[in-house]
Amino acid sequence: MFRTPFTETFGIEHPIVCGGMTFVGTAELTAAVANAGALGLLTALNSPTPEDLALQIERTRELTDKPFGVNLTILPTINPIPYEEYRQVICESGVKIVETAGSNPAPHLPSFKEAGVKVIHKAVAVRHALKAEALGVDAISIDGFECAGHPGEDDIGGIVLIPAAARQLRIPIIASGGIADGAGLAAALALGASAVNMGTRFVATTESPVHDNVKKQICANTERDSILVFREFHNTARVARNSISEQIAEISRRPGAKFDDIAELASGARARERVLTNGDLEDGMWWAGQCQGLIDEVLSCAEVVDQVLHEAKEIIQVRLAGQLQEDLVPRD
Amino acid sequence: MFRTPFTETFGIEHPIVCGGMTFVGTAELTAAVANAGALGLLTALNSPTPEDLALQIERTRELTDKPFGVNLTILPTINPIPYEEYRQVICESGVKIVETAGSNPAPHLPSFKEAGVKVIHKAVAVRHALKAEALGVDAISIDGFECAGHPGEDDIGGIVLIPAAARQLRIPIIASGGIADGAGLAAALALGASAVNMGTRFVATTESPVHDNVKKQICANTERDSILVFREFHNTARVARNSISEQIAEISRRPGAKFDDIAELASGARARERVLTNGDLEDGMWWAGQCQGLIDEVLSCAEVVDQVLHEAKEIIQVRLAGQLQEDLVPRD
Repeated sequence: MFRTPFTETFGIEHPIVCGGMTFVGTAELTAAVANAGALGLLTALNSPTPEDLALQIERTRELTDKPFGVNLTILPTINPIPYEEYRQVICESGVKIVETAGSNPAPHLPSFKEAGVKVIHKAVAVRHALKAEALGVDAISIDGFECAGHPGEDDIGGIVLIPAAARQLRIPIIASGGIADGAGLAAALALGASAVNMGTRFVATTESPVHDNVKKQICANTERDSILVFREFHNTARVARNSISEQIAEISRRPGAKFDDIAELASGARARERVLTNGDLEDGMWWAGQCQGLIDEVLSCAEVVDQVLHEAKEIIQVRLAGQLQEDLVPRD
Repeated sequence: MFRTPFTETFGIEHPIVCGGMTFVGTAELTAAVANAGALGLLTALNSPTPEDLALQIERTRELTDKPFGVNLTILPTINPIPYEEYRQVICESGVKIVETAGSNPAPHLPSFKEAGVKVIHKAVAVRHALKAEALGVDAISIDGFECAGHPGEDDIGGIVLIPAAARQLRIPIIASGGIADGAGLAAALALGASAVNMGTRFVATTESPVHDNVKKQICANTERDSILVFREFHNTARVARNSISEQIAEISRRPGAKFDDIAELASGARARERVLTNGDLEDGMWWAGQCQGLIDEVLSCAEVVDQVLHEAKEIIQVRLAGQLQEDLVPRD
């Protein structure tokens, strides 16, 4: 229905991406997104080993014959992760699209290029995006302040960040953060993006592996029901508002607060996975973006993609075209 | 060129508003915006007395025969302001559009209604907008996190706040915050607004009364060159990044900081007016939004309006329509 620099560059039918998500980006969700004609990204580090990633790629392929990609998030960790081995699995798998995130993708680009893998790099700032473009990535997924997870420390809203990026970048831009519906897709295209990334929206789908309580809570939450944590430690994350995230925020604001003071409450990925699995919404922190306020019901991935596309089409062809009057002669 | 619920309701040619701005919203700027076919709003409290407001309205009328409005910002102040007298001047002046801001407009609505004055209320949250709609205002100007001045304490980016408001309100919505170009107008219309408010963009015009140094700095600044101050005192304001605003932010973060610690540095409206008048950019704080990053040159108001309209039209008719392919038969 849409043809944009993103759909052309990556050979994906629709300008919609479900970016990598810890715990959430499984073979099932990735395949469901792919089957809907959008770009699903299997999250490499959900696999405890490179060997398991190879299995998950195989598993995804059994569930869809459409193209899909793999997300490789590169972060400093206490226990070193064999990123090169994960990368090698991706290159040998035949997957042709990778999303890199978390740090400079430079060390990994030559191998991906050689294997004919196109790279989407996630960036939270125009200057980082420009650097990645110069390094040779094929597209930028630019993450605004509204996004779930890590928006960076600049706090630039998408309505400014997307056009600021579009004015400077020449490669396709995927708008990320705050987008959950067709109005968001139409707006992102107007702002100069050529696709949208939706995280929170795809978490609240029937094919998403999280507990139903989480999906229902995303639908119940308003745009005000996320908060930022870890700002004081320069590792800001946007999470759903609950008793745990409120406590963490409160303790962090105390004079002289140290990360140790909240480490147990936060306990990183484990707490998140616990909530997503057991559905006890107060058992830990879990990521959610401001676009929760735009999500009202759990749908299948196919329904999400279909609704977003048709709403965007209607907005462009009916609302926008209808509001634009052809004045061949100026009114006065 | 555009016909929207905003242009129809208010009888304004273009869906563009230059909202009230302390010091900046003079007769000259208001008339220049009106002459460009957009809605200019003369800022009532720039007049030290109601009598002076009557003179400024007369002055604006001498400079334009197009419709314009008056902004009446109602805030608690140490020295009581005779709001009723300002209101009476507006009602008797024949001006037919008012922008209210700062607090609940209820006490003023009956007089405005009786005088046939349409009311635009500025709100920073959907719940406040809904309350104003229930009170009977004619439109909402909804201010996202990116805006200069007071974004409120919820920190919802425009890309979420505008559609969240549009889903619930029935009266026209003016999207405010982060918008400075035609991409912003097209995006705002896509998100459900029927006009845009631009503050920072109109500050950097030839007809704006601020010192040239300020206009040039807005053009030089990037989207990262604003910061939030007064968050700790629940009166958040977005201002240009400079040595004063950085100092205020730093002092405010200190354990046990009180407003008195920064009162002299801040010194409110006086400091702002000093910078805007003398052009010494480090002499005080001055308001600027994130959309600074989208403003590259000082233009006349007519040029700004013309560029915004034509860019939005091109985006809708060329970029968006071109990206939308007509698939009469589904692809697969």
